[in-house]
Amino acid sequence: MGAATDDKCVFCAIVQGIIPSHKVYETEQMLAFLDINPVSEGHTQVIPKYHAKTLVDLPDEYLAEVGLTLKKVALATGAEQFNVLQNNGKLAFQHVDHVHFHVVPKPSEKEGLVLTIDENWPARKADSKELEQTVARMKARLA
Amino acid sequence: MGAATDDKCVFCAIVQGIIPSHKVYETEQMLAFLDINPVSEGHTQVIPKYHAKTLVDLPDEYLAEVGLTLKKVALATGAEQFNVLQNNGKLAFQHVDHVHFHVVPKPSEKEGLVLTIDENWPARKADSKELEQTVARMKARLA
Repeated sequence: MGAATDDKCVFCAIVQGIIPSHKVYETEQMLAFLDINPVSEGHTQVIPKYHAKTLVDLPDEYLAEVGLTLKKVALATGAEQFNVLQNNGKLAFQHVDHVHFHVVPKPSEKEGLVLTIDENWPARKADSKELEQTVARMKARLA
Repeated sequence: MGAATDDKCVFCAIVQGIIPSHKVYETEQMLAFLDINPVSEGHTQVIPKYHAKTLVDLPDEYLAEVGLTLKKVALATGAEQFNVLQNNGKLAFQHVDHVHFHVVPKPSEKEGLVLTIDENWPARKADSKELEQTVARMKARLA
């Protein structure tokens, strides 16, 4: 590893081989392994070999591998349709405090991630002034 | 741009400035702009400046920027908790055929992405033999 590890983290234990896993793909920075409670066949976890809780805690050298690894794993699933979901924080459904991207094949309506737009996606039309104020606050945070 | 563009794609039109947007962040490869139908304040679309329908169609030079851009945008939102969702294919809830990552702040239970584990996440325990067969098929696809 050569990087941050947490002795109490189950994903760090998987990276170290202390807990066995079904490895799909691996690079120096990243590991992809099957979820043992899949929501569809081929449901895979893509994680950095670095203990960070959320995406904003992850160093650039790992972030740079994220997209490439997700593509490799998506190809490995053979899925024509699939979702990528990454959760940050308990309220946002994160259950293991080590950054992980779910790659979830979507072979049918009832398998994989199931979303009902009305119930799971509370979209509303924002007015232009509201969006301008939001984007101004966001740019200020990056400045 | 210098890369693949589709004249009928609304996201390509946003990249080219033909359709205006509230830009949060931009690099040579990537663009982040506010969703005009947000599910929470700061709901942002992160897209490559390259017309590819799904993640597996995207060239490496764009994939390499995905993780870094997602982190920047997450920091811009100021959200402590947030979800990243990327959909590939109609059945998997993709509505614009240009790769896009939703960065969705999760300030409360009812705002942002709303998931009920029972209804939206049909997980089941897989046995070890089944997982071994799956991982063998996946590795074969990468070989």
